[in-house]
Amino acid sequence: MVRVLVWAEDRPLKIHEAKMRQIYPEGIHGAIAEFLRRQPECAVETAVMGDVNQGLSEEVLSRTDVLIFWSHKHWRELENEQVQAVCSRVLNGMGIILLHSAHASKIFAALMGTRTQCLSWRERDERQRHWIVCPGHPIVRGIKGGYIEIPQDETYGEYFDIPQPETLVFLASAGGGEVLRSGCCYRRGQGKVFYFSAGHETYPVYRQSQVQQVVINAVFWVRPDGLDESWPDRTGECERLPG
Amino acid sequence: MVRVLVWAEDRPLKIHEAKMRQIYPEGIHGAIAEFLRRQPECAVETAVMGDVNQGLSEEVLSRTDVLIFWSHKHWRELENEQVQAVCSRVLNGMGIILLHSAHASKIFAALMGTRTQCLSWRERDERQRHWIVCPGHPIVRGIKGGYIEIPQDETYGEYFDIPQPETLVFLASAGGGEVLRSGCCYRRGQGKVFYFSAGHETYPVYRQSQVQQVVINAVFWVRPDGLDESWPDRTGECERLPG
Amino acid sequence: MVRVLVWAEDRPLKIHEAKMRQIYPEGIHGAIAEFLRRQPECAVETAVMGDVNQGLSEEVLSRTDVLIFWSHKHWRELENEQVQAVCSRVLNGMGIILLHSAHASKIFAALMGTRTQCLSWRERDERQRHWIVCPGHPIVRGIKGGYIEIPQDETYGEYFDIPQPETLVFLASAGGGEVLRSGCCYRRGQGKVFYFSAGHETYPVYRQSQVQQVVINAVFWVRPDGLDESWPDRTGECERLPG
Amino acid sequence: MVRVLVWAEDRPLKIHEAKMRQIYPEGIHGAIAEFLRRQPECAVETAVMGDVNQGLSEEVLSRTDVLIFWSHKHWRELENEQVQAVCSRVLNGMGIILLHSAHASKIFAALMGTRTQCLSWRERDERQRHWIVCPGHPIVRGIKGGYIEIPQDETYGEYFDIPQPETLVFLASAGGGEVLRSGCCYRRGQGKVFYFSAGHETYPVYRQSQVQQVVINAVFWVRPDGLDESWPDRTGECERLPG
Repeated sequence: MVRVLVWAEDRPLKIHEAKMRQIYPEGIHGAIAEFLRRQPECAVETAVMGDVNQGLSEEVLSRTDVLIFWSHKHWRELENEQVQAVCSRVLNGMGIILLHSAHASKIFAALMGTRTQCLSWRERDERQRHWIVCPGHPIVRGIKGGYIEIPQDETYGEYFDIPQPETLVFLASAGGGEVLRSGCCYRRGQGKVFYFSAGHETYPVYRQSQVQQVVINAVFWVRPDGLDESWPDRTGECERLPG
Repeated sequence: MVRVLVWAEDRPLKIHEAKMRQIYPEGIHGAIAEFLRRQPECAVETAVMGDVNQGLSEEVLSRTDVLIFWSHKHWRELENEQVQAVCSRVLNGMGIILLHSAHASKIFAALMGTRTQCLSWRERDERQRHWIVCPGHPIVRGIKGGYIEIPQDETYGEYFDIPQPETLVFLASAGGGEVLRSGCCYRRGQGKVFYFSAGHETYPVYRQSQVQQVVINAVFWVRPDGLDESWPDRTGECERLPG
Repeated sequence: MVRVLVWAEDRPLKIHEAKMRQIYPEGIHGAIAEFLRRQPECAVETAVMGDVNQGLSEEVLSRTDVLIFWSHKHWRELENEQVQAVCSRVLNGMGIILLHSAHASKIFAALMGTRTQCLSWRERDERQRHWIVCPGHPIVRGIKGGYIEIPQDETYGEYFDIPQPETLVFLASAGGGEVLRSGCCYRRGQGKVFYFSAGHETYPVYRQSQVQQVVINAVFWVRPDGLDESWPDRTGECERLPG
Repeated sequence: MVRVLVWAEDRPLKIHEAKMRQIYPEGIHGAIAEFLRRQPECAVETAVMGDVNQGLSEEVLSRTDVLIFWSHKHWRELENEQVQAVCSRVLNGMGIILLHSAHASKIFAALMGTRTQCLSWRERDERQRHWIVCPGHPIVRGIKGGYIEIPQDETYGEYFDIPQPETLVFLASAGGGEVLRSGCCYRRGQGKVFYFSAGHETYPVYRQSQVQQVVINAVFWVRPDGLDESWPDRTGECERLPG
């Protein structure tokens, strides 16, 4: 059983709020939780920024194997205490999946060491293609035909200020000739990190079965499957060797 | 179910032959097959160089998901036809685990593009430690304490002429101060490759439970788990796009 | 001083021959040699498939620090002897730059261990953009504005069957929504390898100053600058350690 | 010309202070600056924690191409303001070389996203060997014989909590069987990062010519050689594409 926490900002998105609620009346966290709940091996919880401790208390995290994180315009409001709690938990083995505008989140920037908010973008109802460049990777299991086509999504383009991915799984192209390293795998400490760029709030991207499949596959890839029971405290301190 | 083929040279090893047979009366392939057969999800076959088509016919390979390959002094005798059949199958998604002196095999060299036979070595009954440098990786699941200690094994040392591993899982140290990138992950085409340096024929290395655990873990990591049913012919040719 | 050998197939390209000769009367090797000769630190020679030993004798290679290699439809005609001589020299430290359709060359496939001929392609006079994804890399020195735009070139697209680049420098996008890992760095043995996809024979791509800059930068990146004088024989054999 | 700033904590090292001053009367920064000043292409300054702004003001950094950073027991005293100024400058292209106990520095941790202070250690006057695993890399230029032997240094061992290096150049072995990824290359934003583990304060490690050669080579590898003049502000913000 994988214990998944689906977190979304869930704060008013100004001009996009109405459109988002039309597509996702239950919120983006609700939509993602819904298809994950159909996976027999997933135990799913949700949380939002408005919850106690912004939904990311140590207690909640301590019962989470995989955190799915969608944030947006309010990313600066996440308290450093929560950022640290999440990063610490990742270094101890919790998997994390950062979606779309969570590229700008303090959590992703802290785990990467770069200005991950930096990329170019445009909202123009454009078609996006996410090309598989790592066939055979568990994250693309069941995706046929070489790419995922999303009829309309926000365009994100390079230069995207991330460390070179340890494994690059998807490359995206947009109508205007932009490209993006759009599916990126990293390891940090004992934890695995997957960033996936699809999913602007004004399009029903998370209703698309192939996108759902990528998120499900990513849950099983990032989960702490190589850890023994003592994992939470392994990398906490320097260790003096016997003299 | 994972269909595993355990292949070993199984040709007389000159001065080492008697010692090897004492430790492994059933051959190295037999010893590895034995502990894999205790895994409910593994269907295990064995083959040796003396079999028809050197045990690596296209027919045999076509029903193999994971090939475990142990070769040694007779590596030059593997026919190019078999080398090509194995490499082609790997590029189409079959996982491969190359053990110990299989570093020198034509198959490993062809998949890497380097002179993988090049490393330094010494037989001196030395203790080897394989340190985990990628905690949380599926290949180290269940390995506690930070390293695997092998009381006696052949020493392999750098410089080892391999491309930089995509993921480095183990680093080995030997009594004489040598080091080796000893557990190395690669992807080639749709297939996954794991090289693990432990297992000289004159020591009961494959009787050690942690070494067995690494081999078992590696089987589940290299197996073609991200492929759809059409995988065997995916990367065969250039594809002309519609004009 | 860097001793550069610019090699091109220079065999009749069927329907493209006339157009190529119009753009490059001196051949593609001649055009590349011309702008390299303006670099004071480069000593430039050229060779073609029609030369003795297909222009790649051990003697010629022994005085080459960097090989620039452009091949196309006649790639199958390169003799294995020459393929081996080039690969061996690369493993001993010679840098190699493979351009455009040399993706399909036996040399690139042998160094990579994959079916590098596999990609998708289309000739449709399309605009290509090569986006910089590794700013600060020596290969992009002097390239401003985030990408190189080529008004017309052949389109190459994923899936491109290469090992994940050790450093990915360029990503290309084409008019039809295709993407390609188009500027890829590897190390093999002591040698460095750079693949760059720009340069179909029917467009004056190598007349474009930014493309020339990339080739010049790549010469200085792949050259054997970390070797001592004993470099040619370093990785030839296993080395038995003193007992 | 490369403008190098050599920075050291230069705060009393408790029981080690007297020994350090015996070996390095001019401080570790002084010793490193001395051999760098013999390089005609290097313009060298030094700074210590006791200087204004802890020696790392924006003004000082703005005239620095490469920062060499040696810190130790007082690493917690570096103000976040300075940490941010250094990291920001690295992301904009300044090279950084972190030496020995600077593995624990806030700067290295922030750039890596992991708990880089975590490794195992022992002070026992042990021999260390730094094996070259990336022959031909500019950082090992002029280092002959396959490894650097340091007669006595502090032992650092795995597990070292760093992201997998983009290029691993050295592996160290110590007398007790420990190993360490001891020479590690990364890119962050437009900047290059090199960590090298040699150089405890109680041994004359930086007096050894091969260690000096590695530091000099690293200066030329990390310097911002692929940047154009506009580099300081390139990655500062998201960029809205024209609609």
